[in-house]
Amino acid sequence: MQKLTSYAAGSWHEGTGEGAPIHDPHTGEAIATVDSTGLDFQAVLDHAHEVGGPALRAMTFGERAALLKALSAAIHEHREELIEISIKNAGSTRGDAKFDIDGATGTLAAYAHFGKSLGDATFLNDGEMEQLGRTKRFAGRHISVPRLGAALHINAFNFPAWGMCEKLACSILAGVPVIEKPGTPTALPAWRTAEIIVNSGVLPEGAYQFICGSTGDLLDRLGMQDCMAFTGSASTGAYLKGNENLVKNNVRVNIEADSLNAAVLGPEVDPDSETYALFLRNVALDMTQKTGQKCTATRRILVPAERVEEVKADLVAELGRTKVGDPSDRDNRMGPLSSPRQFEDVKDGIAKLQEVCDTACGGPEALFETGCYVAATLLVAKDPRAAIIHAEEVFGPVSTILAYDGSAEEAVELVTMGCGGLVTSAYSNDNDWTEAYVLGVAPWHGRVWLANERSAEQSLPPGMVLPQMVHGGPGRAGGGEELGGLRGLDFYMQRTAVQGFGGLLKDAFAPKEAAETGA
Amino acid sequence: MQKLTSYAAGSWHEGTGEGAPIHDPHTGEAIATVDSTGLDFQAVLDHAHEVGGPALRAMTFGERAALLKALSAAIHEHREELIEISIKNAGSTRGDAKFDIDGATGTLAAYAHFGKSLGDATFLNDGEMEQLGRTKRFAGRHISVPRLGAALHINAFNFPAWGMCEKLACSILAGVPVIEKPGTPTALPAWRTAEIIVNSGVLPEGAYQFICGSTGDLLDRLGMQDCMAFTGSASTGAYLKGNENLVKNNVRVNIEADSLNAAVLGPEVDPDSETYALFLRNVALDMTQKTGQKCTATRRILVPAERVEEVKADLVAELGRTKVGDPSDRDNRMGPLSSPRQFEDVKDGIAKLQEVCDTACGGPEALFETGCYVAATLLVAKDPRAAIIHAEEVFGPVSTILAYDGSAEEAVELVTMGCGGLVTSAYSNDNDWTEAYVLGVAPWHGRVWLANERSAEQSLPPGMVLPQMVHGGPGRAGGGEELGGLRGLDFYMQRTAVQGFGGLLKDAFAPKEAAETGA
Repeated sequence: MQKLTSYAAGSWHEGTGEGAPIHDPHTGEAIATVDSTGLDFQAVLDHAHEVGGPALRAMTFGERAALLKALSAAIHEHREELIEISIKNAGSTRGDAKFDIDGATGTLAAYAHFGKSLGDATFLNDGEMEQLGRTKRFAGRHISVPRLGAALHINAFNFPAWGMCEKLACSILAGVPVIEKPGTPTALPAWRTAEIIVNSGVLPEGAYQFICGSTGDLLDRLGMQDCMAFTGSASTGAYLKGNENLVKNNVRVNIEADSLNAAVLGPEVDPDSETYALFLRNVALDMTQKTGQKCTATRRILVPAERVEEVKADLVAELGRTKVGDPSDRDNRMGPLSSPRQFEDVKDGIAKLQEVCDTACGGPEALFETGCYVAATLLVAKDPRAAIIHAEEVFGPVSTILAYDGSAEEAVELVTMGCGGLVTSAYSNDNDWTEAYVLGVAPWHGRVWLANERSAEQSLPPGMVLPQMVHGGPGRAGGGEELGGLRGLDFYMQRTAVQGFGGLLKDAFAPKEAAETGA
Repeated sequence: MQKLTSYAAGSWHEGTGEGAPIHDPHTGEAIATVDSTGLDFQAVLDHAHEVGGPALRAMTFGERAALLKALSAAIHEHREELIEISIKNAGSTRGDAKFDIDGATGTLAAYAHFGKSLGDATFLNDGEMEQLGRTKRFAGRHISVPRLGAALHINAFNFPAWGMCEKLACSILAGVPVIEKPGTPTALPAWRTAEIIVNSGVLPEGAYQFICGSTGDLLDRLGMQDCMAFTGSASTGAYLKGNENLVKNNVRVNIEADSLNAAVLGPEVDPDSETYALFLRNVALDMTQKTGQKCTATRRILVPAERVEEVKADLVAELGRTKVGDPSDRDNRMGPLSSPRQFEDVKDGIAKLQEVCDTACGGPEALFETGCYVAATLLVAKDPRAAIIHAEEVFGPVSTILAYDGSAEEAVELVTMGCGGLVTSAYSNDNDWTEAYVLGVAPWHGRVWLANERSAEQSLPPGMVLPQMVHGGPGRAGGGEELGGLRGLDFYMQRTAVQGFGGLLKDAFAPKEAAETGA
């Protein structure tokens, strides 16, 4: 069986332990093992600090942007191969695999684009110069410089390529070397992507390391300039964030946890409208894409009470058109859950929700004799205020309809019972209703997505995380923030106020664009 | 003896316990007690959530800015009284007391000014609208809205008025109610300031509460929309930040801890220059102002090796001109340390540093028979790389000269051995040297202050925290950030990406200024 290796301190290492098996979720068979036993984690950290960091910081933003562009191309070259691997180890359909891989290369390309605009700069300017003295002779301005540490990225199993590359894009562009730890269940596509990254020779040595398996005592070794960005469950996030060393050293931590994202159908949306059709399409897509294993997937569907039956019937019909089965078969639109562990968790979760819900379609039963398959499961809450509906995230093709009175106020009340989400979506052509909904849910969400008949035709679905927009959310969603264009670099940089002689601040610490045009 | 009370849930409460004594550090006598025993902390939090928050959020930024302006005026009216109280309980000279009180009213006024520019807005815009679809019909933009929680502010003893009001200014302007816990040793001026705030009737009920004494189990009760901002020691900061409830609920935490701020004399600064004179004045000011009890005070003084004797002699002379004694005597320029506890800590700290330093003036002895007095103490490191010099912050009128070779590189190396500072200052007229120094130390500092002969005459000293510039620093300094103009509001707000129909985003979520001009 294949033993997946780690790329650490300049070479590939095979673990010296037995390793943990990972599976093909279609067959349930173990196909490889991951194991980092024997790795010297201090050497990993030192390598990032002493080799990778200095090499990255010696470059301009423009030069680092060019690295991202080249990485995007290098990964894209292997697209077909990565799709096959993703089908095999993640249970992804071809469409799901593309969503992950093209998301990875697209985000790298987007950050290449953002970074190119920064040209020869080696630090960023934040805001304008401000007069502090009686005259402009004594002034202040803010700059941001790369931090001198390493970025430990602990990613989730559901997006082995995208999850790794979106964090990497921000970190590398900022000038901070990456230590990547992928989600174990889908480590094979992550490992192959890592191999492509390393073999491409694009990144300077030390700028990227890959830990396949446990990170050992690495967390206890991170220092004051290091940072840790985690995507995964809220409980693991809290466990990591509470690490004594991280707390003591003020190591920066970003947590992107899951959430019970809600889609809301406005009261006035006509059943024949494009807005309603989009609502059905997007909810069904969120439930079935990646077999519902998306942190942004819709878990709660708010529907005006009098329309619950209609929506239920339409969604059941829509879900019924999604063929489920072997992800290597191009006709299938939904594959298995990504791992035996997920399979068990999702079956348990559905059964729990059924205690307070009616089942419109699907259920907790295994769909086939082998493989990690469940049916797309639509539930209808008996009581939309039942606590478990707002707290239990079933990370699979499962969503629950909640009846509400059609008012923006009650929608806000129910949606915010989720205590913090990555994204919420609303479908309405009534601007007053929409505005009230947005301002009501905004304190609890990192992103609010709005459907409207005038943009329906070209809108990208709410579950798709775009590099231009921030990704993260308060409360249950982890309290973190990633991406958002250049905002995504802040986590890796130190903002510093510089006060002094205005003439010097203007010359030496001016925005690079201005300097280039001869100012 | 006066029992200081707490303002909680709409009324003043006297603790039901024995209370902890606070002192007049000139005489050493206990003058009052603080005690929050018996307070219902859940009621305090509920009051902020249910009464204060809604009242603040019902206002525009412009209206909240007007509150800050009125508060500034209300406190300023009591300036003379507050100076007297500060002399009595904090051991502040008149100048020190003014620095604190005028800092408070000045920061409130500055935020009134910042907020006024936001006019009728109830949320902030961040960046421009971005096209996300094939055309601008599907677009995105970022807004920031007030979070729905309360802000627990735990302040330090050294700035009873300023510390409270700088945090309050950002929080109130953002629309988030404040629960203030002042530093115990100087609770009397903080309490009187709180009384003035409450009696002024300026703030809506629930927007401001004042806990005099322990915060009990309040930390364990904070929720996902609440935040906690702390100023004080690194160890207490880490203890609070590691609180299980804060970690689990992703409660936002900002830590502003102390640091070993460094001043660096550049190699080419002429002894007869204004830059050198400013260096001497600022270092001596930082050592003696507030008896050295400033988180931004200079603790390490880097001097080119061949000039150590000259600088030592000049600083000793400068310090010798600072009269020390009873702070109520207008001739005295330095008073006692603020409390018996500080007195003991500082004497211990000086003795520790003396193990690796020569003493140019001062020492760990009590200066008078009564009161918490020590002399301004200038030390010279025998070995500028001795670990303790970069790690032991003696929070008093104490600073250590470190010889260096005059290069920006070695200055950066020594200064960053402090592992993170709030501010560092450099005195040089050589722009290349200065630029190299700034970029070298920036990753480790929240603020870099530069002296130059062309701005010397009107520069404000480095120890002065200005509302326009960020205040905070990485690593040992706590990893936090406060102030910085409107940047200071971010901690209290949720940034949310809004995606949808471009026309709607343009109308409903446009910058308010644009809307006002009819766009």
